[in-house]
Amino acid sequence: MPPHVPTPAYRRLSFDERRSQLLDASLRLFAQRTPEDVSLDDVAAAAGVSRPLVYRYFPGGKQQLYEAALTSAAEQLKQCFDEPREGAHLSRLARVLDRYLAFVDEHDIGFSALLQGGSVVETAHTTTVVDGVRRAAVEHVLHHLNATEPGLRLRMTVRVWIAAVEAASLIWLDEGKQPPLDELQAWLVDQFTAVLAVTAAHDPQTAALLEALPTDG
Amino acid sequence: MPPHVPTPAYRRLSFDERRSQLLDASLRLFAQRTPEDVSLDDVAAAAGVSRPLVYRYFPGGKQQLYEAALTSAAEQLKQCFDEPREGAHLSRLARVLDRYLAFVDEHDIGFSALLQGGSVVETAHTTTVVDGVRRAAVEHVLHHLNATEPGLRLRMTVRVWIAAVEAASLIWLDEGKQPPLDELQAWLVDQFTAVLAVTAAHDPQTAALLEALPTDG
Repeated sequence: MPPHVPTPAYRRLSFDERRSQLLDASLRLFAQRTPEDVSLDDVAAAAGVSRPLVYRYFPGGKQQLYEAALTSAAEQLKQCFDEPREGAHLSRLARVLDRYLAFVDEHDIGFSALLQGGSVVETAHTTTVVDGVRRAAVEHVLHHLNATEPGLRLRMTVRVWIAAVEAASLIWLDEGKQPPLDELQAWLVDQFTAVLAVTAAHDPQTAALLEALPTDG
Repeated sequence: MPPHVPTPAYRRLSFDERRSQLLDASLRLFAQRTPEDVSLDDVAAAAGVSRPLVYRYFPGGKQQLYEAALTSAAEQLKQCFDEPREGAHLSRLARVLDRYLAFVDEHDIGFSALLQGGSVVETAHTTTVVDGVRRAAVEHVLHHLNATEPGLRLRMTVRVWIAAVEAASLIWLDEGKQPPLDELQAWLVDQFTAVLAVTAAHDPQTAALLEALPTDG
């Protein structure tokens, strides 16, 4: 190898660049393997650095790396929910679900390991991070419904639907990624319409909001 | 106290009776407090026995007691699903939900602590027990739908609805047990009808099963 081409281990990175590089390598590993199957040696190898260097940036070892990678993944997921409040309501929801389900597809093993429970790395902290993503999802959906002061029944409907999307994602992974993603996405959008209609039949607030939503028709 | 009335601590119980008594006491405690807030002394006091006696029956201490109490609670929950295959389909579902939601109401704190994740007592074993309850619930629903060989779409619909019932139960506890239980139950039944109809619109098997169900009408 010519001397002017540095190997990854010898590139000079700033503290933040190095930390971010280690985090990216961790996230890729934790996405594709269960936390039990990721070692610090794997992270070091994937980032092209030594194991002591990984420890210098993450003295808490695997648990700290896992929590940092999870926090980073949670930020990515929250960005999936960003969608302009323009156009038909269900088209916006479909685009958000496209991004969310692509994330699930890409981080499949890590997504299952985290959310199915019983993982050794699961703590009150990781639960808080996951709950933060759920809360953000609920807020976004209510925002797109123009629900500034959602009542109990509307809030519960949206929270339960978000839980159903999460469950459907896990079941989709468990079923070997069947049915195709576009079918799953359309089914979840239709489910959303259906469960909101059920609530609207008994809840005037939900009925009024649905009435006022922009549609394609 | 007259000498012929034995106190609980001095009643002679068989091994199985004593074990069952300790388990009942544990289950009551774990239902109403987080696992972190239950000590072996609490269990001993609730059962009217000494702490060493608790250890003699459960040498694994709190974790073993918790897992045994959880297994016992899981059996109770599975019994909630037992419902004769007679009469209108939705009335059967309503009765099962009545029993399930009464269980949630009674075991509120333990139910939340177990299912919200991040609890110190959560292990791969407890996850397996909880998954066993979910699987039993799915089987019962499919059985009542007369679905002997459920396809992917029907199976996914039922699994996601069961997850939605679980999420709704947790959210109901989180919302201070609002709305009233009978309203929550009716809403879940309506949701079931709605999501099955969504699936039936694209899945001939689900459509045919729904067509054939006995109704009140």
